[in-house]
Amino acid sequence: MLLDDRDLQFLLYEFLDTEALLERERYAEHDRAVFDATLGTARQVASEFFAPHNHKGDSNEPTFDGERVHLIAETRYAWNAFADAGFLAAQHDFADGGLQLPEVLLRACMAYFNAANIATTAYPFLSIGAANLIKSFACPSLREAFLPAMFSGRFSGTMALTEPGQGSALGDLRTRAVLHEDGDYRLSGQKMFISGGDHEMTENIVHLVLARIEGAPAGVKGISLFVVPKFLLDAESGIGKRNDVALAGLIHKMGYRNTTSTVLSFGERGGAVAYLVGEPHKGLGYMFQMMNEARIGVGLGAASLACQSYQHALAYARERPQGRHASARDPSTRQVAIIEHADVRRMLLMQKAYAQGSLALCLYASSLVEDAHTLDSSEAREDAAQLLDLLTPMVKTWPSRYGLLACDLGIQILGGSGYTREYPLEQLYRDNRLNPIHEGTEGIQGLDLLGRKLGSKGGKGYALFLQQVELTLEQASGNELRQPLSEALATLKEVTDSLQRQVEQDPDHGLSNATVYLDLFGRVLVGWIWLRQALVATQALNAGASGDEADFYHGKVHTARYYMDWELAPLAGAARLLCAGNSANIDMHNRWF
Amino acid sequence: MLLDDRDLQFLLYEFLDTEALLERERYAEHDRAVFDATLGTARQVASEFFAPHNHKGDSNEPTFDGERVHLIAETRYAWNAFADAGFLAAQHDFADGGLQLPEVLLRACMAYFNAANIATTAYPFLSIGAANLIKSFACPSLREAFLPAMFSGRFSGTMALTEPGQGSALGDLRTRAVLHEDGDYRLSGQKMFISGGDHEMTENIVHLVLARIEGAPAGVKGISLFVVPKFLLDAESGIGKRNDVALAGLIHKMGYRNTTSTVLSFGERGGAVAYLVGEPHKGLGYMFQMMNEARIGVGLGAASLACQSYQHALAYARERPQGRHASARDPSTRQVAIIEHADVRRMLLMQKAYAQGSLALCLYASSLVEDAHTLDSSEAREDAAQLLDLLTPMVKTWPSRYGLLACDLGIQILGGSGYTREYPLEQLYRDNRLNPIHEGTEGIQGLDLLGRKLGSKGGKGYALFLQQVELTLEQASGNELRQPLSEALATLKEVTDSLQRQVEQDPDHGLSNATVYLDLFGRVLVGWIWLRQALVATQALNAGASGDEADFYHGKVHTARYYMDWELAPLAGAARLLCAGNSANIDMHNRWF
Repeated sequence: MLLDDRDLQFLLYEFLDTEALLERERYAEHDRAVFDATLGTARQVASEFFAPHNHKGDSNEPTFDGERVHLIAETRYAWNAFADAGFLAAQHDFADGGLQLPEVLLRACMAYFNAANIATTAYPFLSIGAANLIKSFACPSLREAFLPAMFSGRFSGTMALTEPGQGSALGDLRTRAVLHEDGDYRLSGQKMFISGGDHEMTENIVHLVLARIEGAPAGVKGISLFVVPKFLLDAESGIGKRNDVALAGLIHKMGYRNTTSTVLSFGERGGAVAYLVGEPHKGLGYMFQMMNEARIGVGLGAASLACQSYQHALAYARERPQGRHASARDPSTRQVAIIEHADVRRMLLMQKAYAQGSLALCLYASSLVEDAHTLDSSEAREDAAQLLDLLTPMVKTWPSRYGLLACDLGIQILGGSGYTREYPLEQLYRDNRLNPIHEGTEGIQGLDLLGRKLGSKGGKGYALFLQQVELTLEQASGNELRQPLSEALATLKEVTDSLQRQVEQDPDHGLSNATVYLDLFGRVLVGWIWLRQALVATQALNAGASGDEADFYHGKVHTARYYMDWELAPLAGAARLLCAGNSANIDMHNRWF
Repeated sequence: MLLDDRDLQFLLYEFLDTEALLERERYAEHDRAVFDATLGTARQVASEFFAPHNHKGDSNEPTFDGERVHLIAETRYAWNAFADAGFLAAQHDFADGGLQLPEVLLRACMAYFNAANIATTAYPFLSIGAANLIKSFACPSLREAFLPAMFSGRFSGTMALTEPGQGSALGDLRTRAVLHEDGDYRLSGQKMFISGGDHEMTENIVHLVLARIEGAPAGVKGISLFVVPKFLLDAESGIGKRNDVALAGLIHKMGYRNTTSTVLSFGERGGAVAYLVGEPHKGLGYMFQMMNEARIGVGLGAASLACQSYQHALAYARERPQGRHASARDPSTRQVAIIEHADVRRMLLMQKAYAQGSLALCLYASSLVEDAHTLDSSEAREDAAQLLDLLTPMVKTWPSRYGLLACDLGIQILGGSGYTREYPLEQLYRDNRLNPIHEGTEGIQGLDLLGRKLGSKGGKGYALFLQQVELTLEQASGNELRQPLSEALATLKEVTDSLQRQVEQDPDHGLSNATVYLDLFGRVLVGWIWLRQALVATQALNAGASGDEADFYHGKVHTARYYMDWELAPLAGAARLLCAGNSANIDMHNRWF
């Protein structure tokens, strides 16, 4: 099973009210059956075309013979099946050739693909992001030239930001673009870690490249965005001659192996033809407008892998006999399944809390994306955008950290078998290890949260978050899970106030524990997500759910209880250190290490 | 650099008083120069014969063509170099062909080999353990037949405990031994995850196998230990005919790839000739007498990999320029090395605390092994043995958990590069992921600590531990690090008392959070280890250390400060839950997952 289908239904239709989207004008032509059929298609295509080669792609990673990149053939079949099912354009309007489907539903679909094979899914994931950038910011002629082919799957796309000389410090990038007399640009420089940067699955690859136009200001304010296709288009929009983009080499990764990770050289033969997207020097701004969605995508990938790990570990724990309870050591009695052991149950409970908590968080964030686009009032849309903006650092990092931990626990539950490549657990860990790194490391996200997001627009997003949590706490009146979250919220407020004062006084010191603060905020946020799930489940139980349904809801309530007990427990210690401005890290001199 | 040589000198000669061993009778013929030369040899052999093929062995794991196992040739050269340097027998007396060197010194030597290439080091590590078992418990004829060849490296050894049908539950093993008319046994059954179980590096492989003699009692009380060589010996102790032991297949692991992990079939052609070690039905007891040392070995392996990861990450962080301080965002200024970023420094500090704390802990435990063997008074030897017995679960698991975390942090510090196989960090993580699993998982160690070790011999080991920590706290009078450890010790006592009562009342419930307790105990234990290091360092600083020496000691003191602040902070939350007998895990029904 790729995902727990019952849980996905719960998250979409009970935890979130996805059906209510049908009342919005954009979705007036859809109905619940369309939503469910879309999910069904995703599950089927993922099961049939993605899952079967997940292990094979890991063991047979892409190779480069100096001329061409070789991928296992199943990758292309999967790409085609994804495209044929319409997912490359599904979020776009009917008028643009899309299916006009809501963000939150499509994210749920992506969860199936991620769970099945995240390395192969990276190709469409990146292509969708690249097409989005063109759609949102490029001129009509660029849109017409590239989007239909990207929507149909003839062309794929990449995002080319990172360079060998700078990783997270985008402001220092050195790829240069020079205006040519033909009105376009000639681009030269090297990009690194470009996923999907070369292959022969599609007729063309459309690179979205950040570069600095000759004479542009230094830093982030001098960066522009370009479309640089692998092949130029001829006069009839067909494939023309090769552009000056060359694969310098493949990078060999710990996981995500079936995704090519490339070093690309632009302009080694005079300059790659590059088409400016939007206005000069605004490239980073465009990129950041898409960033929230890309970061939810990373969180969702981590959540999906965690869910897969949980599914496998749970199935194994239920069928593997080993040992006996402490109170029943008689060796002549039958062994119990390892799920009967308290420590295995503890690990499964942690996995469930992390995996399902992550998935719920990412779908909730996707519903905010949806709201920011399709709510009626502009004020409500702006509120959703502000709240999303604040929460994005946690949506990206919490699943990446705790989803990875869920994968680690999956290995541990299987013991020696979990450590072997004969079982899928270790690959899930290796694949997931990328997620705390790409699209902004944990350290970057912490700085973004504490140094930027908290105070942006007068702290509007933060105020909205507090309101939302307080609303839930009111609804939870009388519920035993209310108190721990209420205390955690008070702790978060106290720490936030203190750190904001510290940052004002001395930004270097004040921001020095931003990653710890990010973790603390994430724990409270996911505590809220779990309380909301528990409230819905409790309501269903009170309404008389029985049998498997009752088990499902009890599982939700009990996992929330575990979360409140154990995952909020470390807050007090961290809060004390943060409020005291503990400076152990910055006090440690370089030469003392 | 394999290890920080200065740190190793500090741990052996300042933190521990290894030089004082020269006063013991067994080491009367040695001097400090011999100790240092031994360390130098280990460093040199590890650098020359082990480190260079660490990556190659990972990328070219052993293969089995149905007849023979193929390993890269460097593995055999490394084995030979290790044997030629005398390390296979170094711990044994001169009279037995050994070098009569102390345990703690040889463990430090093993740290070099582990850091260089833990997968290749597994072969001698296991062989030393197997030879130890024969030496300690086998009859003279078995000792004479096998030990000289094992000490010289002509034969290697394995430990064959696990079976496909039972992992941690040794009492349920099913390999059978039948007494043959020739006075020896015929053994049949299957063993799994047997490291070094087949290869052609040595003339013979001596398997130490746990099996049940026909008619033996069920459970742990009916297990016997056998020597089962791959080749029988002929009348002149030369290699005779093949024994009935067959390689059923190789297992493919996440890391440790150059160590063959095997499934071995015994007795498919009528029964493998097996020689009983010691008395019937006492096999598990013999195994457990060696277990403390094997478990320190696992902890030390984890510590060594953590130290390697720290070395690499530190070097990278010092030379990789990227970004600027929050207070100096002017893009025209030079980028700083990433060690200047607070979050990178935080991660390096955690790495240092985990890596050096683990190494110190394992060497301290090795000094207890030494004391248990060579202290003058039998009472003092017994005390050392009791203390070691108590601490072994933490010595095995704390480095395995936190050393692994150090490897994870190493990846994160390098970012995208850390995730690639072009850098050594990701392999270090994959190699280290085994250590929380083998030689008793974390869950098993927690049960061992709380269910067995704490109360054994009337709680003697625990009382000794408290005494030792209180002694250090007295010595730390006036030191600002005293207070946090003192509070942590009080917490540990309170939790221990509470849990012991809970176990007495209801073992299943009382033991249900044993793994959490193990972690809590481990944190306090390593806090003590760090305080002791800080006291030594403070003394050296007060005595006027300057320059690089002062930097080194400041690093120790400051890392201890970090540890007290941050690593003891979560204790209170966990203690509250443990004392309350929190039962979130066992209350979660199987069908609720």
